[in-house]
Amino acid sequence: MSHSTSDLPYGRVWNFAAGPSTLPVSVLEEVQRDLLNYKGHGMSIMEMSHRSKEYGKIIGDAEATLRRILNVPDNYSVLFMQGGGTGEFAAAYLNLFASKAVSEKQRRLGRQLSCDYLVTGKWSKGGLKEVARLGGKPNAVFDGVVSNTEAEPSVSYGSLPPVSSWKLGRPEETAFVYYCENETIHGVEMPSDLVLDAVDPSVPVICDMSSNMLSRPVDISRFGAIIAGAQKNMGPAGVTLVIVRKDLLERDDSDKEAIQRLPSVLDWRYFDKAGSMPHTPPTFSIYVCGLVFKWAEEQGGLEVLQKLREARAKLVYNMIDAHPDFFHGPVDKRYRSAMNIVFNLPTPELEAQFLADAAKRNIIQLKGHRSLGGIRVSLYNAMPLEGAIEFVAFMKDFYNEHHN
Amino acid sequence: MSHSTSDLPYGRVWNFAAGPSTLPVSVLEEVQRDLLNYKGHGMSIMEMSHRSKEYGKIIGDAEATLRRILNVPDNYSVLFMQGGGTGEFAAAYLNLFASKAVSEKQRRLGRQLSCDYLVTGKWSKGGLKEVARLGGKPNAVFDGVVSNTEAEPSVSYGSLPPVSSWKLGRPEETAFVYYCENETIHGVEMPSDLVLDAVDPSVPVICDMSSNMLSRPVDISRFGAIIAGAQKNMGPAGVTLVIVRKDLLERDDSDKEAIQRLPSVLDWRYFDKAGSMPHTPPTFSIYVCGLVFKWAEEQGGLEVLQKLREARAKLVYNMIDAHPDFFHGPVDKRYRSAMNIVFNLPTPELEAQFLADAAKRNIIQLKGHRSLGGIRVSLYNAMPLEGAIEFVAFMKDFYNEHHN
Ligand SMILES: Cc1ncc(COP(=O)(O)O)c(C=O)c1O
Ligand SMILES: Cc1ncc(COP(=O)(O)O)c(C=O)c1O
Repeated sequence: MSHSTSDLPYGRVWNFAAGPSTLPVSVLEEVQRDLLNYKGHGMSIMEMSHRSKEYGKIIGDAEATLRRILNVPDNYSVLFMQGGGTGEFAAAYLNLFASKAVSEKQRRLGRQLSCDYLVTGKWSKGGLKEVARLGGKPNAVFDGVVSNTEAEPSVSYGSLPPVSSWKLGRPEETAFVYYCENETIHGVEMPSDLVLDAVDPSVPVICDMSSNMLSRPVDISRFGAIIAGAQKNMGPAGVTLVIVRKDLLERDDSDKEAIQRLPSVLDWRYFDKAGSMPHTPPTFSIYVCGLVFKWAEEQGGLEVLQKLREARAKLVYNMIDAHPDFFHGPVDKRYRSAMNIVFNLPTPELEAQFLADAAKRNIIQLKGHRSLGGIRVSLYNAMPLEGAIEFVAFMKDFYNEHHN
Repeated sequence: MSHSTSDLPYGRVWNFAAGPSTLPVSVLEEVQRDLLNYKGHGMSIMEMSHRSKEYGKIIGDAEATLRRILNVPDNYSVLFMQGGGTGEFAAAYLNLFASKAVSEKQRRLGRQLSCDYLVTGKWSKGGLKEVARLGGKPNAVFDGVVSNTEAEPSVSYGSLPPVSSWKLGRPEETAFVYYCENETIHGVEMPSDLVLDAVDPSVPVICDMSSNMLSRPVDISRFGAIIAGAQKNMGPAGVTLVIVRKDLLERDDSDKEAIQRLPSVLDWRYFDKAGSMPHTPPTFSIYVCGLVFKWAEEQGGLEVLQKLREARAKLVYNMIDAHPDFFHGPVDKRYRSAMNIVFNLPTPELEAQFLADAAKRNIIQLKGHRSLGGIRVSLYNAMPLEGAIEFVAFMKDFYNEHHN
């Protein structure tokens, strides 16, 4: 009964890893082809000076393509940095507090502004914790969903509390509102507008889109800044994308203390002033991202990628919903992620069996995050619909064999 | 008269870039071969979860190989981080000031410790400036060499003042001594012992070895920490190596202020505790570094690479010294870099001609740093002796054609 996937090119497998994760085969082929001699320049991209004309074109093209597909307004800067999502947890806070806007607001208020965090899972919590570490005043607008149905109130991250219950700070006391649009571990994804509509327009919204960036169109103009590690939808690990409204890069240079807290390598303005190259950028990783952006454009752009993402996710969720007693999806249907689908099987033994049987069909990297267990299937842009079809066929076979 | 280099494999050129820079061809071939399917795992390294068993082996092997070739003592941690040399300019200072050692010394002294910087060129100056930016008290032990032979005293970076004139801080007032062992732009390289012998053994020495790492054996046990961007002798840009004595990772957790200034992504202890993977590392770049480390070991290790480096450099310096009226090498012979050789020709026009003629012989990336002009030829580990021979043959031909 088992489907054969042995006809995947290059002996490849269906790789459902949460990140680093699968990349388009055509991109990898191009990288491979040019690896020892990039387009007749006689060297690998890895060996090319970032100050060379050729590399200037590579990073310039990457930015231009990204701006086109994402429709980035002119009053936003696009930065390629290092340090991943974790670096930007700190950078977002440190840069905002070094900005003129926050500085002035703070002077008016006469004390430190707080920062609003919507805690929907591990990654938004990570952002909050970093701010607390750095001496900021993070305010949890909510922290998961508290259910009182049992004797002990329990907190879970499978949903969001109603907007009416959110404890947003007063605009004049708040430096920014921060959220993570797709919680990679908990499989919770929310529509941008849910947050943007709830926040006073005077307060900049900072969004971590590490794991759903480029999977659907976004109205950039409503954000203060968007941060995203590349290693899910964009390219290899080691490059981080920041899109930031330019006015937030303005500084009040008399606010020495805030600027002192901001190392150059996390300083958005330092990168902005030098076209992402105030120092040596991760040249090769940016190059691969540029190819992925071009690939995304060739697919038809974000509208097409959005259709694909919904189609892939629907296949899996339909199977979950068809057998809810066997495939238990814990996430509120309204906020189910199209990128990372988490579910449990009736027993840990069955989950282990599921992983082992999947591997036999070349379907791999399905283990839930070590903090959560269960199954997680990540369906990023580069996963062809066919991959989701294979996976669902496997789910079906496994169900038929093991349900009672 | 022109030599043909058209027989270089893959149509490659002689690439003398200062970094990112040439890599061993055999390493690139292996990367290319495994690009779409790493050793039968069905995916590229770029697509592999950093939490997978396979990747654990890749990063573990990279560290183990490095420890062998560099002979890293057990009481030193080896960390792979992001952020380049620039990131570590900040990290070195922030981590030391978050350490128990500095914290206690500061308490004894009753005020902030200073940090001693030996300023031998742009990169050590960069380290100093970052500390000043972050509110530290950097002390320039010296800043270039002041020459009084002319009416106006002028400062230059082609040499070092005598050790007897160095203004090192008093040990009980000094957090660390910092220097850059090879100034990539100014072509100044010094023996480690020159500094290590001058510093009180109670004060940790921090060394930036970004551009001469792995080119000769080093007595790690004499350093507090060594920092190095990978993009010269080790691999692609986007990964930074830190080797740090473990006792310097100990914290006095009551010193909240110092820890608050240290973002997680620059926190050596955070990386140490999680085997360089507290968050997603630059997986592919670390993999390539691991291959370069293996290649270095196969060459015979650092003793052999040291012989090669001296042989390459000697060829070029001999040519410079044979025609000092034509090839002007500004650096003090005692501190000439074997990695980056800088010189000038009699006129800017001749320099432009030199670059153009070299390019015709597939010898490229020879332009001096934009801040300095002139010619710079970088001879890192991966440059075969043959490359230096080709370059010197070109120098000779150019000399014959243009000297008068
Ligand atoms: C949504 C999200 N934010 C942040 C991070 C942290 O990114 P990094 O590991 O690059 O620091 C992750 C990592 O997977 C993530 O999924
Ligand atoms: C010796 C030295 N230190 C530090 C740096 C800065 O490194 P990065 O550009 O990775 O920040 C360089 C860059 O070339 C360098 O040569």
